[in-house]
Amino acid sequence: MGFYPNTLDVLIEKFASLPGIGKKSAQRLAFYVLTMNYEEAENFANAIMQAKRNIRRCKICQNLSEDDICPICASDTRDKEIICVVSEPKDVFSIEKSHEYKGVYHVLHGVLSPANRIGPGDIKIQELIDRVNNGSVKEIIMATNPDTEGETTALYISRLLKPYGMKITRLAYGVPVGSNLEFTDEATLTRALEGRIEI
Amino acid sequence: MGFYPNTLDVLIEKFASLPGIGKKSAQRLAFYVLTMNYEEAENFANAIMQAKRNIRRCKICQNLSEDDICPICASDTRDKEIICVVSEPKDVFSIEKSHEYKGVYHVLHGVLSPANRIGPGDIKIQELIDRVNNGSVKEIIMATNPDTEGETTALYISRLLKPYGMKITRLAYGVPVGSNLEFTDEATLTRALEGRIEI
Repeated sequence: MGFYPNTLDVLIEKFASLPGIGKKSAQRLAFYVLTMNYEEAENFANAIMQAKRNIRRCKICQNLSEDDICPICASDTRDKEIICVVSEPKDVFSIEKSHEYKGVYHVLHGVLSPANRIGPGDIKIQELIDRVNNGSVKEIIMATNPDTEGETTALYISRLLKPYGMKITRLAYGVPVGSNLEFTDEATLTRALEGRIEI
Repeated sequence: MGFYPNTLDVLIEKFASLPGIGKKSAQRLAFYVLTMNYEEAENFANAIMQAKRNIRRCKICQNLSEDDICPICASDTRDKEIICVVSEPKDVFSIEKSHEYKGVYHVLHGVLSPANRIGPGDIKIQELIDRVNNGSVKEIIMATNPDTEGETTALYISRLLKPYGMKITRLAYGVPVGSNLEFTDEATLTRALEGRIEI
């Protein structure tokens, strides 16, 4: 660009490199930083470094954690015999919000995707196998996203785990609570009919 | 939220406090920071502090600058007798991109806005009067935005400057180059007709 002072150009460039932030938004954010007082700007910069420094992956479930073992894996009240497998850390937080699940998790950090050249070695599948080998796991709940890549990943892992003989389940498909049949797609309705339950 | 590790919560909160960044985007950005390597994260944090530390306002035109006097005000080739008054620093950069203007600027850092309680003392009007008092200014070009607040600000300042007797002009209104009359609003067309020029 060259019309902005150099340090401002650099900051705009950094914001523009973030996902979903275009050039105009990056400029707006950079200008906003200049309007912060010194302490606010320092807090923002520190928050970036603190998160980067303090957050690691739980040695057991691979979820984001400030400790070597995350609070869920370290808890006495969680059932270690049930492992819910998700693709991303944010999925753990979504499921936790339901306050329904009492087992533990395993975060794959991705899904199998031939198109993006992501194979079994690129996500945390071996770490799951190791857990199954070392512990007494009774059930694996596959909770990857209900899209093609999520399904493929769930299928691939369930085949790998089959020889171990534990129960392997998948989240139920169906119409979302509070939704409207009129606006539900056919594939979902088909799955909802197939999975119908007696009342 | 409480489901995320604390330092991650803090970072999400910082991103969410930026203008135009909602909760979901803030989460996405915070997760992205965690995927950066340490050096990238450090560069991002440093860019924030460097911009905040190094960028000040030019003592003459109030535009953003890394020096006490900005490159435009310091330049020998710019005509100091013409001052283009804009509301924000980004407007200077927009006009500079046209490579047409050879005068200098004055950045108000805002517009008069009774609704937002922004009065003449809250924007850099006195600094403009001081420049007019101290220099030999022949023309003031009012280039605030063509909206109600921009117009009001331009009118207010032009009345203040009237006694000094220099030429006071306003950017021309009209149909944008490359646009289509069919999609031009009536107010713009009215102004374009009023301002018609002989060919």
